[in-house]
Amino acid sequence: MQVKVVLNEDEMPRQWYNLAPDLPTPVPPPLGPDGKPISPDMLAPVFPMNLIEQEVSQERWIDIPEEVLALLYRWRPTPLHRAYALEKFLGTPAKIYYKNESVSPPGSHKPNTAVVQAWYNKQFGIEKLTTETGAGQWGSALSFAGALVGLEIKVYMVRISFDQKPFRKIMMETWGGKCIPSPSPYTKTGRKILKEQPDTPGSLGIAISEAIEEAVTDPSGKTRYSLGSVLNHVMLHQTIIGLEVKKQLEKIGEKKVDVVIGCAGGGSNFAGLAFPFMYDKINGAEIDIIPVEPASCPTMTRAPYVYDFGDTAEMTPLLPMHSLGHAFIPPPIHAGGLRYHGIAPLVSGAINDGLATPKALHQLECYEAAVTFARTEGIIVAPETSHAVAAAIQEAKKAKEEGKEKVILFNLSGHGLMDLTGYQKYFEGELQDYALPDEEMQKFLKVLDGLPKP
Amino acid sequence: MQVKVVLNEDEMPRQWYNLAPDLPTPVPPPLGPDGKPISPDMLAPVFPMNLIEQEVSQERWIDIPEEVLALLYRWRPTPLHRAYALEKFLGTPAKIYYKNESVSPPGSHKPNTAVVQAWYNKQFGIEKLTTETGAGQWGSALSFAGALVGLEIKVYMVRISFDQKPFRKIMMETWGGKCIPSPSPYTKTGRKILKEQPDTPGSLGIAISEAIEEAVTDPSGKTRYSLGSVLNHVMLHQTIIGLEVKKQLEKIGEKKVDVVIGCAGGGSNFAGLAFPFMYDKINGAEIDIIPVEPASCPTMTRAPYVYDFGDTAEMTPLLPMHSLGHAFIPPPIHAGGLRYHGIAPLVSGAINDGLATPKALHQLECYEAAVTFARTEGIIVAPETSHAVAAAIQEAKKAKEEGKEKVILFNLSGHGLMDLTGYQKYFEGELQDYALPDEEMQKFLKVLDGLPKP
Repeated sequence: MQVKVVLNEDEMPRQWYNLAPDLPTPVPPPLGPDGKPISPDMLAPVFPMNLIEQEVSQERWIDIPEEVLALLYRWRPTPLHRAYALEKFLGTPAKIYYKNESVSPPGSHKPNTAVVQAWYNKQFGIEKLTTETGAGQWGSALSFAGALVGLEIKVYMVRISFDQKPFRKIMMETWGGKCIPSPSPYTKTGRKILKEQPDTPGSLGIAISEAIEEAVTDPSGKTRYSLGSVLNHVMLHQTIIGLEVKKQLEKIGEKKVDVVIGCAGGGSNFAGLAFPFMYDKINGAEIDIIPVEPASCPTMTRAPYVYDFGDTAEMTPLLPMHSLGHAFIPPPIHAGGLRYHGIAPLVSGAINDGLATPKALHQLECYEAAVTFARTEGIIVAPETSHAVAAAIQEAKKAKEEGKEKVILFNLSGHGLMDLTGYQKYFEGELQDYALPDEEMQKFLKVLDGLPKP
Repeated sequence: MQVKVVLNEDEMPRQWYNLAPDLPTPVPPPLGPDGKPISPDMLAPVFPMNLIEQEVSQERWIDIPEEVLALLYRWRPTPLHRAYALEKFLGTPAKIYYKNESVSPPGSHKPNTAVVQAWYNKQFGIEKLTTETGAGQWGSALSFAGALVGLEIKVYMVRISFDQKPFRKIMMETWGGKCIPSPSPYTKTGRKILKEQPDTPGSLGIAISEAIEEAVTDPSGKTRYSLGSVLNHVMLHQTIIGLEVKKQLEKIGEKKVDVVIGCAGGGSNFAGLAFPFMYDKINGAEIDIIPVEPASCPTMTRAPYVYDFGDTAEMTPLLPMHSLGHAFIPPPIHAGGLRYHGIAPLVSGAINDGLATPKALHQLECYEAAVTFARTEGIIVAPETSHAVAAAIQEAKKAKEEGKEKVILFNLSGHGLMDLTGYQKYFEGELQDYALPDEEMQKFLKVLDGLPKP
């Protein structure tokens, strides 16, 4: 009885998989403020050219540099687990596998792109990266990456999270990252907002604006901005997850996966696991591929496919994606995670092409699934990851009803040890289910009026 | 360049190593309140007989049952890392390896014995385990074990920790464990203390007393008590750590280890790594084996070898060990971890026989080492583990001075993600070094007057 499958370092994939050239319908380009396609040069003040090349690449396979592999080896390859205890608890004939991304030092899949971005920036001569963080996961991962690669990291953390989650700041500082509450007095944007609304709790939109402003206005030209999801090169770096899984399944003779599941906020952990399986699907394999989102933030299942800004402050290019509008704010009864208004253009494209079938779940079902998982498999998952767990349990129950020995695979994108407050609220009955009402959604979508259509 | 060494499940050791029969000087037996040796039967109300058999065993190798292996596979074998980045930072010719026990779901080495104890209790027909917890690590590990094995877990948590560390309680509850502040109204001991001192912050001694009382007074006879360190069977279960390391070093052709280091509170993570190497030392190998403790709690380096109680309330048998006296209380300027007044009898015996050479370190040096480690190797270690890191850095610097290519190995016993407050205090300059003054120690040692001598 093999409980988990490990790989040696020399068995790790040597290339990332780029879905872009294989999508039946090419993803439209990002647009500038003038409505015209953005050229790579126009992104140069924000990102280093070597990452911009990956962003626009149409190569299917992209080599992972040896030095990057050595960085990834710190915690990769990650284990693939067979969920025997969960299967037994559910009495399902399905086999359930999960990829355990929680074993990275910051506790999630995010370092898979953080260390890579840090390395490419360093190669390009960059000395400092700025970024934003909401709950703190991305800021932690980039601070970790900065320590490994030797880059200065500055994280603008949404003020309300900064105040409520002091431990995330300590994590970042321990890795040498600088974490400051946003809005801050260090940027024009921050100063303006602080003057107008001194007591603002901040927002991810403001934090993004501050981080980009600091990067593009640094007179030395040695500062760039880093984004933890949504963009093509981020999805690319995360495909190491699914590529490892394929090798692991091959190692134990598991020939066919029937269902692939990942939770999706910006889309990167889902893409990381699923894109290598989409390659098989494009080439004729029958696989159900399911990105899962909360019913309170139904980007993939209900929002239109549009051109929208990546941030609230309208500083980013317009991206073609499913979006609830860049002014979207999820309700406070939601415990956090997966709150982004949009979703990666490549994931949107895959949905449009019928390669992925999104699903929205309510948070009480997700926490219930997470508790079941902790009490069977023993891992306390992140609130975001609980959506993937709940969908996997649904599929396993369906397989039981149908009497089918399906193979179900999901991404355990992170542990929940830094986010136990959500569990506490769940145990104390403080959480409620909430599906975004249609009239509410229509209000949020108004910000899209007048923007170009893909 | 191999960054870490992994093992497949089928490469995991199939037996634990018992140091007891190999110690040149046999460890004296535990004594009862009458000063006479405790017989196995006398421990039966507290522990199941199958674990008592391990506790008193003189067999060198003890088989790990197949079902226990399947439980350990959930997170084991754990990786052995080569600390290339730390070596480079230090400019040392030494090779530094560390065993990464932080990848277990509760984040430390403690589940290595928790799941084993839970399994043996279950086999014996036990339905419920009680235990105490200070900072919360052991209570978390046993709750995790209870979920995996299917046992009810009740954790008496020292009230001040219960109030200050609410996240530990949520962890335990997520795994289905019940965590209550001690003193509690559920035991005679608890009620008595609550009546006399309603505002007491509690103590580990009181919590142990409550946990044992609940176990031995359960009329069903289906409840037992579980201890996370100190005892022989706990050391035994932890030897899986060092036995794995030996296989890992063999796999990469590393023939000889010069220095083995572990931090030691009760002694279990140190013993787990070091005992298999003591076997080599007993058989002629030259190895420096170093258990590390805080200068504020200098059990191994300065306390006498005596018979002492394991708990403040004098409910346990008398154990032969180095001890500061069971009334010892470390000063509040110490950030936590490794505060136990005694040390495992087997570790004490090894020290007496010259197999291990303990060292005491100050906490500022330990936090400094931990921050260096986080910024080079990328892992934020537990405050306890920082002592092992600091000692490893000292040895690597010594090797540099001597120009020797030594092989240094230490145990990364746990991550610090649940204990970031210590790092915060360190960054804010709130921590001070403190070595227990001799006159203070003499005061604490007074409780030993009149007890038998080993």
